[in-house]
Amino acid sequence: MNIYALGGYEEVGKNMSAVEVDGEVIIIDMGLHVDRMMIHEDTDVHSLQEHELRNIGAVPDDRLLEGKKVVGIILSHGHLDHIGALSKMAGKYRCPIVGRPFTANIARQLMKDDGQSDQNVVTVKKEGSVGNFRFEFINVTHSIPDSSLVALYTREGDVLYANDYKLDPHPPMGEKTDFSKLEGMNPKVFIIESVRVREQKKTPSERIAVMMVQDFFYDEHFDFECLISTTFSSHISRVLTLIEASKKVGRQPILLGRSLSKYWNAAMEEGIVSVDVPRIVRRGAVNKMLREAMHDRSQYSLIVTGHQGEPDAVLSKLADGKTPFKFSNRDCVVFSASTIPNPVNHANRYKLETKLMMQKVRLVKDMHVSGHASKEDHRELLRIVNPEYIMPSHGEFDMLSGWGILAEEEGYSVGRDLFILKNNQKMKIP
Amino acid sequence: MNIYALGGYEEVGKNMSAVEVDGEVIIIDMGLHVDRMMIHEDTDVHSLQEHELRNIGAVPDDRLLEGKKVVGIILSHGHLDHIGALSKMAGKYRCPIVGRPFTANIARQLMKDDGQSDQNVVTVKKEGSVGNFRFEFINVTHSIPDSSLVALYTREGDVLYANDYKLDPHPPMGEKTDFSKLEGMNPKVFIIESVRVREQKKTPSERIAVMMVQDFFYDEHFDFECLISTTFSSHISRVLTLIEASKKVGRQPILLGRSLSKYWNAAMEEGIVSVDVPRIVRRGAVNKMLREAMHDRSQYSLIVTGHQGEPDAVLSKLADGKTPFKFSNRDCVVFSASTIPNPVNHANRYKLETKLMMQKVRLVKDMHVSGHASKEDHRELLRIVNPEYIMPSHGEFDMLSGWGILAEEEGYSVGRDLFILKNNQKMKIP
Amino acid sequence: MNIYALGGYEEVGKNMSAVEVDGEVIIIDMGLHVDRMMIHEDTDVHSLQEHELRNIGAVPDDRLLEGKKVVGIILSHGHLDHIGALSKMAGKYRCPIVGRPFTANIARQLMKDDGQSDQNVVTVKKEGSVGNFRFEFINVTHSIPDSSLVALYTREGDVLYANDYKLDPHPPMGEKTDFSKLEGMNPKVFIIESVRVREQKKTPSERIAVMMVQDFFYDEHFDFECLISTTFSSHISRVLTLIEASKKVGRQPILLGRSLSKYWNAAMEEGIVSVDVPRIVRRGAVNKMLREAMHDRSQYSLIVTGHQGEPDAVLSKLADGKTPFKFSNRDCVVFSASTIPNPVNHANRYKLETKLMMQKVRLVKDMHVSGHASKEDHRELLRIVNPEYIMPSHGEFDMLSGWGILAEEEGYSVGRDLFILKNNQKMKIP
Amino acid sequence: MNIYALGGYEEVGKNMSAVEVDGEVIIIDMGLHVDRMMIHEDTDVHSLQEHELRNIGAVPDDRLLEGKKVVGIILSHGHLDHIGALSKMAGKYRCPIVGRPFTANIARQLMKDDGQSDQNVVTVKKEGSVGNFRFEFINVTHSIPDSSLVALYTREGDVLYANDYKLDPHPPMGEKTDFSKLEGMNPKVFIIESVRVREQKKTPSERIAVMMVQDFFYDEHFDFECLISTTFSSHISRVLTLIEASKKVGRQPILLGRSLSKYWNAAMEEGIVSVDVPRIVRRGAVNKMLREAMHDRSQYSLIVTGHQGEPDAVLSKLADGKTPFKFSNRDCVVFSASTIPNPVNHANRYKLETKLMMQKVRLVKDMHVSGHASKEDHRELLRIVNPEYIMPSHGEFDMLSGWGILAEEEGYSVGRDLFILKNNQKMKIP
Repeated sequence: MNIYALGGYEEVGKNMSAVEVDGEVIIIDMGLHVDRMMIHEDTDVHSLQEHELRNIGAVPDDRLLEGKKVVGIILSHGHLDHIGALSKMAGKYRCPIVGRPFTANIARQLMKDDGQSDQNVVTVKKEGSVGNFRFEFINVTHSIPDSSLVALYTREGDVLYANDYKLDPHPPMGEKTDFSKLEGMNPKVFIIESVRVREQKKTPSERIAVMMVQDFFYDEHFDFECLISTTFSSHISRVLTLIEASKKVGRQPILLGRSLSKYWNAAMEEGIVSVDVPRIVRRGAVNKMLREAMHDRSQYSLIVTGHQGEPDAVLSKLADGKTPFKFSNRDCVVFSASTIPNPVNHANRYKLETKLMMQKVRLVKDMHVSGHASKEDHRELLRIVNPEYIMPSHGEFDMLSGWGILAEEEGYSVGRDLFILKNNQKMKIP
Repeated sequence: MNIYALGGYEEVGKNMSAVEVDGEVIIIDMGLHVDRMMIHEDTDVHSLQEHELRNIGAVPDDRLLEGKKVVGIILSHGHLDHIGALSKMAGKYRCPIVGRPFTANIARQLMKDDGQSDQNVVTVKKEGSVGNFRFEFINVTHSIPDSSLVALYTREGDVLYANDYKLDPHPPMGEKTDFSKLEGMNPKVFIIESVRVREQKKTPSERIAVMMVQDFFYDEHFDFECLISTTFSSHISRVLTLIEASKKVGRQPILLGRSLSKYWNAAMEEGIVSVDVPRIVRRGAVNKMLREAMHDRSQYSLIVTGHQGEPDAVLSKLADGKTPFKFSNRDCVVFSASTIPNPVNHANRYKLETKLMMQKVRLVKDMHVSGHASKEDHRELLRIVNPEYIMPSHGEFDMLSGWGILAEEEGYSVGRDLFILKNNQKMKIP
Repeated sequence: MNIYALGGYEEVGKNMSAVEVDGEVIIIDMGLHVDRMMIHEDTDVHSLQEHELRNIGAVPDDRLLEGKKVVGIILSHGHLDHIGALSKMAGKYRCPIVGRPFTANIARQLMKDDGQSDQNVVTVKKEGSVGNFRFEFINVTHSIPDSSLVALYTREGDVLYANDYKLDPHPPMGEKTDFSKLEGMNPKVFIIESVRVREQKKTPSERIAVMMVQDFFYDEHFDFECLISTTFSSHISRVLTLIEASKKVGRQPILLGRSLSKYWNAAMEEGIVSVDVPRIVRRGAVNKMLREAMHDRSQYSLIVTGHQGEPDAVLSKLADGKTPFKFSNRDCVVFSASTIPNPVNHANRYKLETKLMMQKVRLVKDMHVSGHASKEDHRELLRIVNPEYIMPSHGEFDMLSGWGILAEEEGYSVGRDLFILKNNQKMKIP
Repeated sequence: MNIYALGGYEEVGKNMSAVEVDGEVIIIDMGLHVDRMMIHEDTDVHSLQEHELRNIGAVPDDRLLEGKKVVGIILSHGHLDHIGALSKMAGKYRCPIVGRPFTANIARQLMKDDGQSDQNVVTVKKEGSVGNFRFEFINVTHSIPDSSLVALYTREGDVLYANDYKLDPHPPMGEKTDFSKLEGMNPKVFIIESVRVREQKKTPSERIAVMMVQDFFYDEHFDFECLISTTFSSHISRVLTLIEASKKVGRQPILLGRSLSKYWNAAMEEGIVSVDVPRIVRRGAVNKMLREAMHDRSQYSLIVTGHQGEPDAVLSKLADGKTPFKFSNRDCVVFSASTIPNPVNHANRYKLETKLMMQKVRLVKDMHVSGHASKEDHRELLRIVNPEYIMPSHGEFDMLSGWGILAEEEGYSVGRDLFILKNNQKMKIP
């Protein structure tokens, strides 16, 4: 068995791994490096070809697979750093692209938005096979619906791909992590995310975020007029929390922003949310909506895009005065998201927050918990699945090496049964 | 009316303020600067006189009050940075020292432990008067029982002292904040803490901490042997959370450490906790207890002192191997506390954690929420009480100035109706 | 005497103070808040009116001076945060704008570039008077030619304005600080910058930067091809250091970028530099120059704009591949500048450096010393001039309060003889 | 050829590597992990046995060498993190311990201070051989006399050990780096330090520190009474700078502190310094000396131990008032050293500085340049020696991986010709 480290082994982003058994290759994930896109914001990135995007580090370099027989591409979940390069790179493989319902839905949209055919995208609920590979999606908690650990069952041993996840005992939406599949799995190879492995804690449950939102929305001693919230558009569970809390306090939830409506509609199509539809405002009607919200400030709860200060998102436009909406000092903007640590995001958030503060808006930040496992979640999963070889992925070198430290505490040894690969490396499993 | 800034106007610590009306002075709080004690750890601080402690900055400098007629000392709550200097400084005033039941209980112990008489300590449940001052304890949420905002009603206007507090809508223990007293109070002077005023958020409820503890303790997929937790000894609500979660999972809760037993006993005496007594282990029996805990590792839940890495606390002794207890790599130490930001604490925690990690202990950190108001709690309280003059306290200069920024957002102006005093300043209220 | 704090009392930027004696007002400095300009980069800031710029915080709010008799505007030195608002605000005062030769030269250009008349700009070498104010420029070391402390001699006492400066015993260019004027000056009011007052050190001499540049340029064991340096365009001394070191190693120095040529030409016009002219490349000839530099990579030393990663500067264009120049991995980019700490600059530098690294360029950063006094320079100047009242300026609240700490160490007391004003405050000096 | 990574491959400290050719092993360096000693400060570390010190991570784990034929121990230079474990570990090898004069002198003292025989310590000026290994000391610039790159010439190829060094073109004391030996050396294996490899700059020359010291000491506008400096005791060049600058301004230099006198005496014995002896004050005479210095405050320049705030050093005793010396607010303490980044040092420095500030002492910090190569020094050396295989050492994982990044920029590839080993790993060179 060969493992190919193609992307995400030197960065948080552009995840792509591949497994080769008996001359067949299966790819897992094909993500974008969003950071690299932002750095080249003045370039028209969307018109770039694969090799140009590869050169600026925005998509994985998969040239190690040239001439290989690739039988399928499996998608672990629908985040852009896992599926965002599909429309640029997947076409040449002419093989099925397999994801669970929500993931496949998003992947199809991505292909179509980029003018690509989506005919190879296949929806699989739970398990299936491509070529000689039998695969299974094992449900796990993360921050987007249909997140999965991917298990590959091969003649040369099993591979468990755990990128991304956390172990949340109380997910407010969706199924729990399917521990029955994991106990004593003993995979040969364990490919595992590293984003927060250096944090010596257990990542809190998403229900902590639910409670923080409810505590804030329901607090009768908190007196605000317009209530504007922003979170990750693909975090359907969080968006639902914001919607339900809004309705409970008699505010009509309104979704504003292209990305929010895209993911919410996908969740509706896949039957993931059945809540009375919040009002989703289309681009042409945004200004009319905002005038209503200004006029009767306590009737609505605006849920908008722009949590990272993205210049084109709704929240930035509001802060820039590019809409009819004028803030009052009793209006409140809730950031139900953390700032993704990267200087460009810091600058964007700084600009956004400074502008909002200059307009006397109340800012409520950090109403959020992460979707990534911390060190003690990782240790627990490691003990549960008890793999033979560990390959940390999804992180910079010091994050991958953080996994090295954890694994050594658990009796593994770097270089013996934990391998820190770099992008574009191939490793033969003994 | 004169306000005296005596301590806590240049630091987080040694809080002491005073109000003078018609020739009578009332003091609020008389705290210790714990940081300064740590810096001089090799000095025998306990044998120092008041003027020596003043010189090293460990207690407030109250010489501005010399020759004044001090009619009473009011205690807002029982934390050491609010009452810890009583035994060194209060004696000379020969006046009543007034606190609510838990606060007064702790104050009495402090006096006795330092060889002072406690006869001037007076327990008052709700309101009373000393000299011409009528005072009232307004219940508030913080991180120790019987926390209060102190209201003074005087001929020249009212003073509201809000140091320390947060606005927790769901305190798991004790009463809620008494908003009925606060709405439209319009005090002349508002003395207000500044510790977290620069954080643009709302401080989460203590029930968030409860849920984090429960999620961790109850998680059936988390597999550990000895379970050792540490938190602030005076945080009775948190200790109770740890005790109850322990019992729920069939572990017998054991309190280990002098300070934990001191505060817990006070809470029992004052009827604040009525839970079946957890086992409190006295010094002589600690080693026996630890041997039992080692022998049957899953029977107990040890709740110990040492969350800041204090060298003499139980947790440091465990880490140093100074007890019979030997750690296994399935043992877990839960820090249900943040590190108080100060280089000495950072070093102590670093030493402690390094030693625990060298023994393969699992560390679970940050299972905690703060007891201090953030910017949006402060804004809310400000709008509710609507004072004439604001005097930020309890913070370094940049924290006090953070209050200046908030107040200006709310229509106040630094130098006109918000005054940033420094220690040893007296201010005549117009 | 009244002092008006108009700008720079809550930020690093938009410095503007004023002094009123006997019904006459003199303004010192009228600067821009560059940070606020960057935040609104998508707005066409240059077309904005004064009141619009004031609303976004980009220029000082001088409405306190409405109806006052302003007799003159004195410029301490030519940095934009001291003179950049002239073209937006000075016109309405119809009074002389006085600066030393280099400062006045830059001020005239600024007015003309913004379509304003420069006829009120007056060059004064050393001293003069406007209205009843006698003023004197006292030479001081900073990071731009003709930097001055401004002394005002009035019937009600003297004012010394020390914003910005450092005490450099060995300035490689220009005169030393004129201590003879300062010893025992005993001004009534001392307005003093605060940018680095919290750093417990003495700021190193500019000759340290000279030596670092020389050590690097002259090192025979350092093997590079193209040599590209970038520094503050107005830092003529540093640019000269780069030019001379280049010539010494047989490389022809080339200045590339509008801002570099603007300041260098001003220095030439004022006789500040008499060095054989480096080649200054005009916009139309840049690409031709770069093709030459690529062809014979060791013949030139390119000195370019873009040290903060400004998107339109020459260095960013080189990194973006928007010029004919292609980097080799033996090319070297020297940052003879620090990053001005602000999230937008951090993001711009991050983008620039990432792009350079992706092209294998060698980065040599931090070849720089600051032009701002540190705490021990400030203490020394304070002891030398021995003022009656201190008014810290040029800094955020915590920087101004850093001056408070220093002054208290020297026997002053905040609120008694050191006053921390905020923008838009007027203070009557007793 | 086998390389053994024994210490310093997971930390800054306890450096120890070994090379095996034809059944013979040569060890290079045998250092202490000072950090681990500090963590166990309450333990009597000096009485611990090797295995106990190994268990707390204070000395390298060399059990991989059990049963091997070790023919010699080569010392690169005299810092404790390179030779400090000799007295605990070297005895069992019964082989020569080879160092250049200053290094060997210090090693002998270490052995004797710990009650060990020093008879195996051999002084070699330049080159020699042990067993079949021919070795050469190649002079290099660092921050202690007689610093060397160690070259091993073996039948299976050469090894170059570059740990620690910087490339200083103008060392104020001692010889320059011997580039003639290094150009085109093409060693098979290059073991290289990693402490500052992530800093994208060139480390400044020691003469920058000389100039900063001189600028400060000679500045006639700087008015201070007692002048107290502190630096690394083994940094003879810096101590000499302080001595000479003191004499130039008419102050008698006095060395105070055990460690300063130990290293200075060694430098005298080895003829490294020939300056007129500064007065070295023995323990019994310290108080008398300090009384003199207090009496005539401008006559002396005290050079003392304690730059990291070590609790037992002279400077801490001065700050604690444990000597007869009383500070005035015109006294000045110069830190000609950086704080070694580690929470214990930060706490010690914080305690020291707080105490000094409470006594109104002027603090002048950061008068220092590092002795460790930055990224561009490393790149230069790499290009000069052009090795076949690279093995980064002396650093935590993220530092070693920083070398990986640099090497990849230079055409190497991690896992192919750059190997990141961990402590206790053996690597067979192909």
